Amino acid sequence: MIKQKIMLAHGSGGRLMHGLVKELLLKRLNNPILAELSDSALIKYKDKIVFSTDSFVVTPLFFPGGDIGKLSVCGTVNDLVMLGGLPEYLALAFIIEEGLDYRILEKIVESISREAKKTGVSIVTGDIKVVEKGAADKIFINTCGIGRVKNNLKLSARNIKPGDKIIITGNIGDHGLAVLAGRQDMDFGFNIKSDCAALADLLLPMLMKIDGIKFMRDPTRGGVATTLNEVSGSSGLGIVIEEENIPVSGKVRVACELLGLDPLYLANEGKAIIIVRADSAKKTLSLLRAHPLGKNSRIIGCVVSDYPSQVVMNTVLGTQRIIEMLSAQVLPRIC
Amino acid sequence: MIKQKIMLAHGSGGRLMHGLVKELLLKRLNNPILAELSDSALIKYKDKIVFSTDSFVVTPLFFPGGDIGKLSVCGTVNDLVMLGGLPEYLALAFIIEEGLDYRILEKIVESISREAKKTGVSIVTGDIKVVEKGAADKIFINTCGIGRVKNNLKLSARNIKPGDKIIITGNIGDHGLAVLAGRQDMDFGFNIKSDCAALADLLLPMLMKIDGIKFMRDPTRGGVATTLNEVSGSSGLGIVIEEENIPVSGKVRVACELLGLDPLYLANEGKAIIIVRADSAKKTLSLLRAHPLGKNSRIIGCVVSDYPSQVVMNTVLGTQRIIEMLSAQVLPRIC
Repeated sequence: MIKQKIMLAHGSGGRLMHGLVKELLLKRLNNPILAELSDSALIKYKDKIVFSTDSFVVTPLFFPGGDIGKLSVCGTVNDLVMLGGLPEYLALAFIIEEGLDYRILEKIVESISREAKKTGVSIVTGDIKVVEKGAADKIFINTCGIGRVKNNLKLSARNIKPGDKIIITGNIGDHGLAVLAGRQDMDFGFNIKSDCAALADLLLPMLMKIDGIKFMRDPTRGGVATTLNEVSGSSGLGIVIEEENIPVSGKVRVACELLGLDPLYLANEGKAIIIVRADSAKKTLSLLRAHPLGKNSRIIGCVVSDYPSQVVMNTVLGTQRIIEMLSAQVLPRIC
Repeated sequence: MIKQKIMLAHGSGGRLMHGLVKELLLKRLNNPILAELSDSALIKYKDKIVFSTDSFVVTPLFFPGGDIGKLSVCGTVNDLVMLGGLPEYLALAFIIEEGLDYRILEKIVESISREAKKTGVSIVTGDIKVVEKGAADKIFINTCGIGRVKNNLKLSARNIKPGDKIIITGNIGDHGLAVLAGRQDMDFGFNIKSDCAALADLLLPMLMKIDGIKFMRDPTRGGVATTLNEVSGSSGLGIVIEEENIPVSGKVRVACELLGLDPLYLANEGKAIIIVRADSAKKTLSLLRAHPLGKNSRIIGCVVSDYPSQVVMNTVLGTQRIIEMLSAQVLPRIC
């Protein structure tokens, strides 16, 4: 029933938009709450909830290891997980450029559907806007999520103390490089795939089992360097990391050298930085490593009282280097 | 501290984005949950909640009676109210075109701040993306909202019965025409202002006082005609409206005649269609009329068992006309 190209009228609120909702979305994302086709979703809740929003403007729309659809589920799911929430509900909003090929949209929605099922979240409400050709670049997606918090943890950088250990759940920089390579049609002679993944399965069981997790965040835009600077900034404490312990795949290391990029500043979409009390660090690490998404987890550093509000790296050369927050734009539209 | 133009790096996740968040957003939208500057917001909840998302792509950004900022608060707030939710929390996400004048962004955020205060909602989490010049048209805003549902109402078109009355809370078509006039620099010789307004104050107390409210929806894109068609479609019942009872201001009527537009298809941003049991209709109407936002409320029709899944209008000429759902795009980017 759907024409091959998206028209302005597909965002009009009228007949064509209703067709798009039924043909494209309800078929793939259906659940009793969404099927109400109200402008809002009515949800029963007790307990605490986490609430998060993210817009996705990544280019290209499809890249090695993922696409804007998968990313828009994983990105918001991970933000919920970082505060200890079990992701349950997503709101999904499209801004589409007139003339977008319907098959592209369909591929994106299929990817959203697949990832939502895998992660156990229901898409319960949404919105479609279509803007005229040239007023947006193909498609932007916003997802907003609600997660249920079943524990009494208060995960916050303000809880960290000197001595706490810093863990990264795997190799860094893959997402940033995969998108860059996809965009420029670069050929490094080997594929680098985005690490785009939902982290609920990896992290939520760990939160229940480990006593002493204080903070989690996914180092997306701005990379590990920026996330650690956010932590040092809001805690007022120092962070020391060991370059030799930072896990970077051989492929990413070579590509970064070729391009003059620093993996510490590259975006990740399937990794978390975890700060944990020292006496729980080993147990945390072995739990993480037992899961496929955490098999390359490493302790990369610790919290210190020296260097207040700074991040310092002990380099492989034996020197020390201050790691600043990202201050220019390295790779726009990475997520 | 902020440069006069938005740069790509303002969306990088790094230092410039942190500056923008603090200088632009925290100053105006501050509350303890937002101040955590996490990627998610942690909220305590009991009861049921409503959850809604909307992207705003309106052009021009500023129009008589409102702007994209005010609209992005009112639009989502109203979606929550339509299911009986008391709007409490908003997530706010910007997609900004590189080079946007900082003062425009500031004006928009001030408008958001003003409207959020007025409506009693807190902006508790958010996101900023910046895309390169030409990849978006100035600024798009997504808001996602959570409202608390304190009653046991199940507002749904599926609950309506033949005999129920249909109320509109005031004059229709103002928003659509105000935006169109603002866009084309049209001069009708008189100002038409958008009706953009948050409806929580008007509608939530009414819900508590009246027994028999069955359905509420704000007739935005696609207008009253499309909303009524949604109702007849999901209930399987017919709807009959009386043209002479549909409130349209003299200005809008004249402008519509000049432009060949039908006010039934024009967007409204501060009106609701309410369907109520017949014996409660009069009391509902007098309550609505006692409020400034509802002073022009009218009963415009009723639900019937004839004309299944159709909307029929008795015209002022004494004829009957089938009112279809909007099927083309009359005015793109109206909200």
